[in-house]
Amino acid sequence: MSNNLVISIDAMGGDNSPRVVIEGVALAAKKNPDARFLLYGDSQRVNEILDNYPHLKKVAEVRHSSEVVHNEDKPSAVIRNRNTSMYMAINAVKQGEAQAVVSAGNTGALMAISKLTLKTIQKIHRPAIVTIMPHRTGRYVMLDLGANTECDALNLAEFALMGNIFAKHTLDVKRPRVALLNIGAEEMKGREEIHQAAKIIKHSHLDMDFIGYIEPHEIPEGKADVIVTDGFSGNIALKSIEGTAKLVVRLLKDAVKKSFLAKFGLPFMLGVGLNVKKTMDPRLYNGAMMVGLNGLTVKSHGGTDALGYSVAVSNAVRLARQNFVATIREELERVDLDELSQEVLYDVY
Amino acid sequence: MSNNLVISIDAMGGDNSPRVVIEGVALAAKKNPDARFLLYGDSQRVNEILDNYPHLKKVAEVRHSSEVVHNEDKPSAVIRNRNTSMYMAINAVKQGEAQAVVSAGNTGALMAISKLTLKTIQKIHRPAIVTIMPHRTGRYVMLDLGANTECDALNLAEFALMGNIFAKHTLDVKRPRVALLNIGAEEMKGREEIHQAAKIIKHSHLDMDFIGYIEPHEIPEGKADVIVTDGFSGNIALKSIEGTAKLVVRLLKDAVKKSFLAKFGLPFMLGVGLNVKKTMDPRLYNGAMMVGLNGLTVKSHGGTDALGYSVAVSNAVRLARQNFVATIREELERVDLDELSQEVLYDVY
Repeated sequence: MSNNLVISIDAMGGDNSPRVVIEGVALAAKKNPDARFLLYGDSQRVNEILDNYPHLKKVAEVRHSSEVVHNEDKPSAVIRNRNTSMYMAINAVKQGEAQAVVSAGNTGALMAISKLTLKTIQKIHRPAIVTIMPHRTGRYVMLDLGANTECDALNLAEFALMGNIFAKHTLDVKRPRVALLNIGAEEMKGREEIHQAAKIIKHSHLDMDFIGYIEPHEIPEGKADVIVTDGFSGNIALKSIEGTAKLVVRLLKDAVKKSFLAKFGLPFMLGVGLNVKKTMDPRLYNGAMMVGLNGLTVKSHGGTDALGYSVAVSNAVRLARQNFVATIREELERVDLDELSQEVLYDVY
Repeated sequence: MSNNLVISIDAMGGDNSPRVVIEGVALAAKKNPDARFLLYGDSQRVNEILDNYPHLKKVAEVRHSSEVVHNEDKPSAVIRNRNTSMYMAINAVKQGEAQAVVSAGNTGALMAISKLTLKTIQKIHRPAIVTIMPHRTGRYVMLDLGANTECDALNLAEFALMGNIFAKHTLDVKRPRVALLNIGAEEMKGREEIHQAAKIIKHSHLDMDFIGYIEPHEIPEGKADVIVTDGFSGNIALKSIEGTAKLVVRLLKDAVKKSFLAKFGLPFMLGVGLNVKKTMDPRLYNGAMMVGLNGLTVKSHGGTDALGYSVAVSNAVRLARQNFVATIREELERVDLDELSQEVLYDVY
């Protein structure tokens, strides 16, 4: 392949693979004519579907893999099996043949193989999972969402550094506003590691608009572009947000069903429902990115459709095009967060 | 006062005190004819308003206090001032004149004075903040919501014990389903202290329907009646839920404004909006309770109206009527969580 922008695809991951995967990549290929794709999977099945998408066929190469990681497989049981489509797709990034990998397969296995194979970027202590979410007037990114259940101040500062670059590359924001997730009861303002992280970031001279702490209820108002937190709290916030959005929509539906009059209003309200649905459509926010590794791993939701999968692929293309991983490395050459954190912890400032 | 069911009220706390407070207590008094009230505040102002509510006047006693805790006061600055309405109202519980205290004032000061004055129940290591929330088909309680930013396994087990009793007394559920809040990515199921707490609870023979872990997006579905978590995660979940509910409603309003057609549908949809609003009405869930102290402190939202304030007071009455604090003490006599946690931590089981 002559083109440098290459994304490797685990064609066998996800609920309706490889069909939905190929359909999704085909959609993404139309939107990203500069990208090429390596499709790992059962070559016969993949080729059969690929025949329906001649424009994708031109920019794709099918590579056969004989085995598949299943959703119920334990990561430890499959992590060293080099014959799975997932392993081979990740390995393509390690070998420098692709810049990013997309999979809708087993999350635990994907993260474990990615970590083992791609390794953490030098000077980054922990990779993180990041995603893009909607707020009232736009979008924001949040990390970590579950890769690390406990984080120290240095981890959080590194997430801020990576999240800042990630937001620049995905949100069309020149100077993202970066905030640490915290709670704000009067007498106690959250955890000590968060205060220390704030100190490290403030003194780091990172090229970043650090705006301090943010509380969860301020997120939907769009007060920050990058929300930094530990993986436990991030996961709690993410799932609370998703669950509540579903609840409110469900309550509305329940209420409409019960109301005789509401049925007459429904046709008029159709546009409203569609508009809100579009803003909150989970397919448009599909894709959790594992950042901090030498290469980018994108996890698509296993049950998404072609549109959702294409969003995950397009995010991978975009980050690869902008040399996301290289940019993190450059920033780390300018700033020694490790040394800085030692100084802050021993209160030099 | 001959009646044993007495609630002390900080009449000066909150945005429109003492007016909203007295109005709220008057509403609660109608619903709880067996309760009596001690009203602490500027006696002249309180009495003026009280004259409008003869039914409350019969069951209330006004006690003058010369000073007020303001919202901007630091807890440390007011904690030992015995002349404030807040201090005096809390002290009435300590003196055994009242079983619970309600205040809409400065949260930090209220918690600090309550802790210092009422002291933690023997064998309980940390008090917690608990509140009642709506799910799709009913209500649930969650604790801790911010009193403790870090919690060990024993703290969580104690919260489960208190939350279970709290839910029995407030939710009309005979055997509440108690769950530990956790995250559930495949490879790692949350934090170690949560696993240990689960072990302690399982081996405690507490009279409780412990159903294991719950993830935040399952909460709105009503899978548990009591959600147990550390104060940081609980606060994050609570504010994420509140913020998102507001966001969705706001998006709907924005969309209606933009849509010409939707305006014709609005009259038909009115009932739907009212129904959902009623389910989610924050006034009906007003009141954060501090549990684990020798006496009950109820914090009302500072900006609520009389209806909201009356809900907080009614919760206080209900818990006092059922001897909430005594029930916790009884349960603790049956079960030695402290000893049990040692055994679990050293893996006797």
